[in-house]
Amino acid sequence: MSLRESSTLFNTIIYEQVNKVAFEEKTISSSIVYEGPVFRVRKHIVDSAGGQSVRDIVEHTGGAIMVAVSEDGKILMERQFRKALEREILELPAGKADPGEEPIVTASRELSEETGYIPQDVKHLVSYYPTCGYSNEHLHIFICKDLVKGEQHLDSDESIDLEWIDTETCIDLIMKGEIQDSKTIIGILFARQAGEI
Amino acid sequence: MSLRESSTLFNTIIYEQVNKVAFEEKTISSSIVYEGPVFRVRKHIVDSAGGQSVRDIVEHTGGAIMVAVSEDGKILMERQFRKALEREILELPAGKADPGEEPIVTASRELSEETGYIPQDVKHLVSYYPTCGYSNEHLHIFICKDLVKGEQHLDSDESIDLEWIDTETCIDLIMKGEIQDSKTIIGILFARQAGEI
Repeated sequence: MSLRESSTLFNTIIYEQVNKVAFEEKTISSSIVYEGPVFRVRKHIVDSAGGQSVRDIVEHTGGAIMVAVSEDGKILMERQFRKALEREILELPAGKADPGEEPIVTASRELSEETGYIPQDVKHLVSYYPTCGYSNEHLHIFICKDLVKGEQHLDSDESIDLEWIDTETCIDLIMKGEIQDSKTIIGILFARQAGEI
Repeated sequence: MSLRESSTLFNTIIYEQVNKVAFEEKTISSSIVYEGPVFRVRKHIVDSAGGQSVRDIVEHTGGAIMVAVSEDGKILMERQFRKALEREILELPAGKADPGEEPIVTASRELSEETGYIPQDVKHLVSYYPTCGYSNEHLHIFICKDLVKGEQHLDSDESIDLEWIDTETCIDLIMKGEIQDSKTIIGILFARQAGEI
């Protein structure tokens, strides 16, 4: 095993086995093997560490997630049925980006459409990849304040209940494992760590 | 808009529009439309709020994520190339469950295989769904301590660098947006909020 100390930003990091990593996998061929309304799947044949391998990637346009906070410290949550889980769960509002749309525009538009609340103050918190192992989906979390109530305009196949939940209750629900949605856990714990909520 | 107060656990929650939600979507038909080595895709036709809709679901067996902490407070991280992002990123060690395997067994086995470290103390932190909108993947995060060094046994197509990173540096990298992997953000921020690191 080889060890070295980095002289970069990561100056507290000890690297092990630095000689083993291939920092790219060259695509030999790729093709779309499934295309649906929300995502498509591209199958890649790549040169990997062990020879040729298959890499199936879910291609998704990404979207925005909104931590919308009221003046009295409540967070706007949604309860909706999720077919993937065959049950309803509690989540932060979120929505898919329109093609070419800036994430901050998606955030304001989707919060307004899904909840009827129009934010006057929108700030980027963090961006992340929910499933880097097999999806290129990139999500962007915003904190939304100064909310003005308008009208909800759901997509025809959406059905969503809105709930205002105390910040401390949100944290408790996460720590008890009762909120299990990744965007909701990241949005709330990141906002707490950042001192925003 | 109808409002009510809940008398349940969620006693600080105000519900809005409680009458609008359909808490299930009946499957009219479903079929596997793609099957690959890591996941398959099942297309459902369902009865939704707006009539019949398509719900494409990625079916994945789930897995375990390990926050492995050394006695001097460093966290074991991996740097690996991810084809979905076309670059290498920094992540917590994680691995897919074998069929029928208990998540805590996956955690010990995968930590040992991927990193060579065998944990003597493994504790469940939290479970979550990375992409509840279109995948049934369920992930389980464990904190692993009392690590004994053994040998790394990577899969033939895996290539991974190991890095030990200070806990505070990990938090900083998340808060600066330099760590963007969901399992890594959740594992570290949850462990911090729980007082485990």
